[in-house]
Amino acid sequence: MLVKNKEVETLKKLGERKAVELVTSLLTPGDEKIAVGPGDDCAAISLGEYYLVITTDMAAQKTHFPLEITPYQMGWHVVAINLSDLAAKGALPLGVVVATGMPEDYDTDFLNELIKGMDSCATKYRTRIIGGDLKSHELLTLAGTAIGIVPKSEFMPRKGAMPGDMVAITGKLGGSGAAYYTLKNKIDVEDKEILRGLFEPEPRLAEGHALAKTGAVTSSMDISDGLADSLYQLAKINNVGYEINFDNIPIDQNAEKFAEKLSFPIEDLTIYFGGDYELLVTVKSDAWDEAEVAVSKVGERLTKIGSVTESLDLVLIKDGKRMELENRGYEHFKWKGME
Amino acid sequence: MLVKNKEVETLKKLGERKAVELVTSLLTPGDEKIAVGPGDDCAAISLGEYYLVITTDMAAQKTHFPLEITPYQMGWHVVAINLSDLAAKGALPLGVVVATGMPEDYDTDFLNELIKGMDSCATKYRTRIIGGDLKSHELLTLAGTAIGIVPKSEFMPRKGAMPGDMVAITGKLGGSGAAYYTLKNKIDVEDKEILRGLFEPEPRLAEGHALAKTGAVTSSMDISDGLADSLYQLAKINNVGYEINFDNIPIDQNAEKFAEKLSFPIEDLTIYFGGDYELLVTVKSDAWDEAEVAVSKVGERLTKIGSVTESLDLVLIKDGKRMELENRGYEHFKWKGME
Repeated sequence: MLVKNKEVETLKKLGERKAVELVTSLLTPGDEKIAVGPGDDCAAISLGEYYLVITTDMAAQKTHFPLEITPYQMGWHVVAINLSDLAAKGALPLGVVVATGMPEDYDTDFLNELIKGMDSCATKYRTRIIGGDLKSHELLTLAGTAIGIVPKSEFMPRKGAMPGDMVAITGKLGGSGAAYYTLKNKIDVEDKEILRGLFEPEPRLAEGHALAKTGAVTSSMDISDGLADSLYQLAKINNVGYEINFDNIPIDQNAEKFAEKLSFPIEDLTIYFGGDYELLVTVKSDAWDEAEVAVSKVGERLTKIGSVTESLDLVLIKDGKRMELENRGYEHFKWKGME
Repeated sequence: MLVKNKEVETLKKLGERKAVELVTSLLTPGDEKIAVGPGDDCAAISLGEYYLVITTDMAAQKTHFPLEITPYQMGWHVVAINLSDLAAKGALPLGVVVATGMPEDYDTDFLNELIKGMDSCATKYRTRIIGGDLKSHELLTLAGTAIGIVPKSEFMPRKGAMPGDMVAITGKLGGSGAAYYTLKNKIDVEDKEILRGLFEPEPRLAEGHALAKTGAVTSSMDISDGLADSLYQLAKINNVGYEINFDNIPIDQNAEKFAEKLSFPIEDLTIYFGGDYELLVTVKSDAWDEAEVAVSKVGERLTKIGSVTESLDLVLIKDGKRMELENRGYEHFKWKGME
């Protein structure tokens, strides 16, 4: 069973994106009920006037969870990252299930805190943990699946961006990057709050739902693997380019402080790092005001950070200078974000 | 993060059943949309005239997959065990998602075979792999989630068995046990077919659907953890007892041969072992014929193996003698079935 053949292509060499492309090419195409298959944040199944949307995400010890995370935060995290995918499609959650693999020498206090974290995140976002699976496993492994529903007319796919559309994000960027590098460099954390964004992300369900209702959004995804990475994915799907104004990107306060204190390049926190579960959307330019107001009424601000271009280039404008937006961020198998 | 406190109760001491009870007690009860929460084979969400049913199951290297299983069979297995849970509720699948954690030194051939196994099982049962997640992980770990739909009037819950009902199972028992002990005792396998039942179970979707349509079934579950274990679970939920006639249990041909050849107790293969993904149902006695005919038209046979009793005892009748049905089978954390 253990295939460790160095002669052939390993997943490490291939990287997550290409591996996912390979997987998708091997799957039998869906029947007419399946509106959106692999490749978007969620799959979508046609049910009358609605789409049922489904997403799954796994997180595990050693590869994904740093030592500093608490069991409560692990539970929160796996629920939050799945709800974030529903948010990006404009869907509201119907429920979450979590398959948990756990070493048998873990105690019930650990299980208690883990489940409380899952439950707290679910109930905060007006949904429930409706089922799951509990198995023994050598490494703690959590696989969450969120199910949501959205009227077909409100579903926000990844594909749909058109030249001239505005590019916008919810919230602020860089918080998770600041937390990650703080941990990685073993910097003493006076204020535990800096780690919260990384460990307890807040899915933008209200914001996604409000945006979906406006009909102003032409494409949407969450930026779990970083802003640059997400833009490269959208560029490929939509056959367009992007022009991003760095100075317009709202920066998290902790990221700003961290970058200043350590003379750390701020782009590596805000653009080239994952873990900020914000929504990246393209908005019809004549509907911008409506989208902005809709989001501000329910939660985080929606900020215009650039535009979609006909040219296929991905351009970053910083201090008045135009440069190439680099194609890097968090990619599994190639780079480990939280070892 | 690593909690290995020997002073407190570990999951190994607690066992899977009690751990699941603990988890269930910690979860916030569902809202009015959630018809069936944790504790049944699937959760059920109310959607008009239908229930949306969801189940998730994880399987991983070392704890669940023996060395002899192929990547194709691992892929098949994780899809099949989830579809089996839908089958037990009378639901038809809408789609399956699989979160895959995989060591980065695995090659693309392995991934290829794994995905082909998943896809083959899904398409054989008229559904699709509609999405997933692919992450690096130190141990190969597969977490599948199946989503299905069933008219509310046809949903077959675990709770509903009444004294006087017939107890019945689909198919034959013992095949997985025979395969497991063949591997465990390192017996040379001349005929690989003996391993197939264990590695490539066939979910009884057609049988479950046909049973659901009759309205004859009062309770249903799949016997993934063994017949005895399943009956103990049903007895507790339904506050009833069971009388099982051992001589009526249809025995798999391989199990029969294996037990004879090695003088192995046949009950340890058919009653006290998991991995046979058959359906265990209770049927209203006046609707037996209808249920039997409905199943025989679509696939495996439905066999009457006993009856539900008012007395809370679980009785096994063998060679005319009445004895206690033992409360043992496959339970995670307490006993590892496939090391």
